[in-house]
Amino acid sequence: MGHRIITISREFGSGGREVGKRLAEVLGVAYYDREIITAVAQRSGLAEEYIANVSERGITAYYPITFGHTFAYSSGIIDPQVEVMGEQNKLLKSLAEKGDCVIVGRCADVVLRDYKPFNLFVYADQASKVKRCLERQGPDEKLSENDLKRRMAKVDKDRSRYRALLTDSRWGERSAYHLCVNTTGWDMHALVDALAPVVSGWFAQQGK
Amino acid sequence: MGHRIITISREFGSGGREVGKRLAEVLGVAYYDREIITAVAQRSGLAEEYIANVSERGITAYYPITFGHTFAYSSGIIDPQVEVMGEQNKLLKSLAEKGDCVIVGRCADVVLRDYKPFNLFVYADQASKVKRCLERQGPDEKLSENDLKRRMAKVDKDRSRYRALLTDSRWGERSAYHLCVNTTGWDMHALVDALAPVVSGWFAQQGK
Repeated sequence: MGHRIITISREFGSGGREVGKRLAEVLGVAYYDREIITAVAQRSGLAEEYIANVSERGITAYYPITFGHTFAYSSGIIDPQVEVMGEQNKLLKSLAEKGDCVIVGRCADVVLRDYKPFNLFVYADQASKVKRCLERQGPDEKLSENDLKRRMAKVDKDRSRYRALLTDSRWGERSAYHLCVNTTGWDMHALVDALAPVVSGWFAQQGK
Repeated sequence: MGHRIITISREFGSGGREVGKRLAEVLGVAYYDREIITAVAQRSGLAEEYIANVSERGITAYYPITFGHTFAYSSGIIDPQVEVMGEQNKLLKSLAEKGDCVIVGRCADVVLRDYKPFNLFVYADQASKVKRCLERQGPDEKLSENDLKRRMAKVDKDRSRYRALLTDSRWGERSAYHLCVNTTGWDMHALVDALAPVVSGWFAQQGK
């Protein structure tokens, strides 16, 4: 239980993933994000894309069963989704046992609460989130600003719903986090260089 | 407009004032809190205690006129309260013009937005706020835990109402702040030592 676990929750487009990645580099610890999904997929034998969707959206009876893959069992639509969450949570715990790390998303702050993680919430104002997303669109993506705003709202809502399956504490509600940081206007390198000592300071005080 | 202005908003009992005071020390800048009230009182000729109350509670038609002092004019109950807010806001601006500083409370983040302050929100979980308040009670104060919880809720509600007079952005809503920090479990010295470089880093990036 003595490892330094940093969990990152984030508004879509705020750069939370970049903060997490850089923070892991600066602190010299492991970084987990979509890799988790891959690993879960390999364990459970479920399709990776399906799992990525479940872990972003949470369990829902409305989830289309025709997602493009057959499941190991077909006794109902909820079962494989519960399976995914269960596998993912087990995996998160095994990663936390393994060593110091940064974990982005997956409600790791809730799943790993017994490991006393440092929980960071990353957000930004809408204009800078839109700008960030537009800059990062691939050559095949041509989402308009309005499309992006809708997508943002939807992704954040899905995250919120996923969280609600695991805990009473609401997504984005400050009480669940040690620190909430607004990335608007920050150079990401400068921000993470400044944040890393806050995280280290916290763990040092906890004797980690 | 080039000064480094740090504003601190805080949940009652979270240690926001202490964070502000230490942050001012570490950064070597001026610190303003209740001193503002005193100065406003001296300017406007209104009673200091009355002003302290108005600035915490905001303007309200229900405010008791029998507060214990006569006013410069008696054309209605709202006038002196508007006067207080106006004087206080003017004073905040003159402090911001004067030099680098930390200002706790008084909605300085809103009043001074043109000065591009760094806005910090300080919070904590209820158990640690209660503990903090109990430890800091004077020998004449004997508030029970329940009394304290009620007082906490009331003070925070009053702050929220005061803010609503000045801006649409809600008190405690993360979007209004650059950083929201949970003091629960932190040694205040360690916390502020870790936070100061985040604030300096922000200003350095803004060329301040």
